[in-house]
Amino acid sequence: MSPIIALITDFGFKDPFVGTMKGVMRSVGTNADIIDICHDVAPGNILSASLMLSMSAPYYPAGSIFVAVVDPGVGTDRRAIAVDIDGKIIVCPDNGLVSWLLADAGKWRAIELDKPEYFLKEVSNTFHGRDIFAPVAAHIAMGVSIDDLGTPLRDIKTLRIPQTVVGEKSIQGEIIHIDRFGNLLTNIKRSQVEQWMPSGEYNKVRIHIGSIEMFGIVRTYGDVHTGHLAAIFSSDNLLEIAENGGNAALASGSSIGSPVLIYR
Amino acid sequence: MSPIIALITDFGFKDPFVGTMKGVMRSVGTNADIIDICHDVAPGNILSASLMLSMSAPYYPAGSIFVAVVDPGVGTDRRAIAVDIDGKIIVCPDNGLVSWLLADAGKWRAIELDKPEYFLKEVSNTFHGRDIFAPVAAHIAMGVSIDDLGTPLRDIKTLRIPQTVVGEKSIQGEIIHIDRFGNLLTNIKRSQVEQWMPSGEYNKVRIHIGSIEMFGIVRTYGDVHTGHLAAIFSSDNLLEIAENGGNAALASGSSIGSPVLIYR
Amino acid sequence: MSPIIALITDFGFKDPFVGTMKGVMRSVGTNADIIDICHDVAPGNILSASLMLSMSAPYYPAGSIFVAVVDPGVGTDRRAIAVDIDGKIIVCPDNGLVSWLLADAGKWRAIELDKPEYFLKEVSNTFHGRDIFAPVAAHIAMGVSIDDLGTPLRDIKTLRIPQTVVGEKSIQGEIIHIDRFGNLLTNIKRSQVEQWMPSGEYNKVRIHIGSIEMFGIVRTYGDVHTGHLAAIFSSDNLLEIAENGGNAALASGSSIGSPVLIYR
Repeated sequence: MSPIIALITDFGFKDPFVGTMKGVMRSVGTNADIIDICHDVAPGNILSASLMLSMSAPYYPAGSIFVAVVDPGVGTDRRAIAVDIDGKIIVCPDNGLVSWLLADAGKWRAIELDKPEYFLKEVSNTFHGRDIFAPVAAHIAMGVSIDDLGTPLRDIKTLRIPQTVVGEKSIQGEIIHIDRFGNLLTNIKRSQVEQWMPSGEYNKVRIHIGSIEMFGIVRTYGDVHTGHLAAIFSSDNLLEIAENGGNAALASGSSIGSPVLIYR
Repeated sequence: MSPIIALITDFGFKDPFVGTMKGVMRSVGTNADIIDICHDVAPGNILSASLMLSMSAPYYPAGSIFVAVVDPGVGTDRRAIAVDIDGKIIVCPDNGLVSWLLADAGKWRAIELDKPEYFLKEVSNTFHGRDIFAPVAAHIAMGVSIDDLGTPLRDIKTLRIPQTVVGEKSIQGEIIHIDRFGNLLTNIKRSQVEQWMPSGEYNKVRIHIGSIEMFGIVRTYGDVHTGHLAAIFSSDNLLEIAENGGNAALASGSSIGSPVLIYR
Repeated sequence: MSPIIALITDFGFKDPFVGTMKGVMRSVGTNADIIDICHDVAPGNILSASLMLSMSAPYYPAGSIFVAVVDPGVGTDRRAIAVDIDGKIIVCPDNGLVSWLLADAGKWRAIELDKPEYFLKEVSNTFHGRDIFAPVAAHIAMGVSIDDLGTPLRDIKTLRIPQTVVGEKSIQGEIIHIDRFGNLLTNIKRSQVEQWMPSGEYNKVRIHIGSIEMFGIVRTYGDVHTGHLAAIFSSDNLLEIAENGGNAALASGSSIGSPVLIYR
């Protein structure tokens, strides 16, 4: 098996940015298996990229290398880092891109990427994905330990992850992601709901989003009629609001940050 | 040569869905060459995915594995299947995704995927692309026969494919796909037109779409002036309406299902 | 290392075009590493694809093969060509796709692809990406020299590349590309500015775009306040107008071709 380099960026599709990064990796000399996770992160949305990274990385083999580039501070004094989180390596700017992964992490260590011999010879001030992160990832894939890439760091930057409020009568959370189907992903974990209601009588809860009320947490999208909204546990074990055959974001008028409540 | 796994889904690009499926395949252990056919199928449009699969699969080597996931019924009792159609393997929900391929198929056999040892350990109710179809495809790529994946099926679900009406004076069909250039693909086959008019005097036919009339079937887009609509045989040997240098869908105001007629 | 085939097209994402080309390459028999540079070139915009190719190709290893397909003249008598430019091979229609690469090229030679034994058996009039360019690239990756693919050409088609006007008091250029962040790339080269103002006192220049005036050329996006426009040298060493944390194209109302001026 080749080593794996998986990419998540806000570079989109109308430019040659991602293809150029791949050319750089091949020029460095790696035969790694380069996989695209997502390049359509909203421009500059670090927390969104961080969330998606945390959803995808657990499904990759140990030793996989992730290059995450959402980098509004490119060229400033923000650091470039490599982080080993439970045996997976993330190469990224030090701006919070690993916040969601770290929230559930066991062991981690971070290195500041401060050895230019692992970068392209000319480093621009506007495209470190090409000039720093791609070549560094290629070197890791070719066997360089992250410990040899720079200086150990005690702390790295993390962003505030939206928190839930668990009360006796309710759990309050919020929308953290809207997927291409318009499904609304919340930050309320299945495990929280299970602790809060050990009886598992999910047909007895009410879920509020805006002025909309739903009854019960269903098992599949198909458990409600077409065009109806339903609460469900997502494939990431988070509470999700979906519309069977439709778009819950449009139907509910909600957006990232909109509050969601479960009541007994 | 590595085995090939080619993907067609309605998962789009703003989520990590496809990248996560690829991570799963690598975690299972396959070194397959994973190729994206299309991920921008309109959400839930099974027939559209089926059509695109039938256009692309013939150009792949024998033994290629296709994972097709447009799955509005995920988590319900719809079956998961693997189908061998003329030596190509399609792994998908049993909801009609192979309808277009079967319409022209020679030999085929289908298996219900009912052996959880080939799935991820935890199977969600909302993302079988990740939990069932990706790992099953990886196992096939690693040498597991589809016969070992489950129970043979006599019948699988097919959707009604739009039919043409061939008369003495006309052939009536409809728009079945609009490509990114706005070209209108119809379900009228070149072979039907050739049988209907063996003389090949295609300059003598009229083509109607909405209130627009065109004369003749041209050989290349460049055979009409820029901004003019023309009928042409597509690269899939279907009748197509195109605008030289423009967008025929916008110019004609037509959409999927709009009728198209050829008259002598 | 496998040979590399890198793709740039205007085929977009809603059709199976690109995936079908990849299937063809595998069917020919190459195990090449197939990389996507960009498929979202504006339909028919040859010069835009040419520019992106010239930005990306330098970062690929020598010997890499590029397939560029923006081909409004498909099926007409425009030629199909393979061009070796400084050791990189570009396979494309002869319509100007290598214009930007040739502008800075050292040695190049071109071949007309006129040997159908390297094409698919059936060649359509509407999809030479699949029928000609993909199989030819696969054959090159499998070791066929471009000299064996057809007839040497003395000249190939080039498009006019927008030129700058360098005067004593000013340099006039124009917007040649707008990236996904809304950054405005101009055709004014860093080297031109350096020659024009050897003192390097870039804080003393004024930049005009439309009715907007900016002072100085900054080093990073972060050197101006959020929401402010700034001139900067791009990662391709071109003058770029960007908005820190925003979209300069929207903020300035400019588009491809809009004039940009630097004054002392």
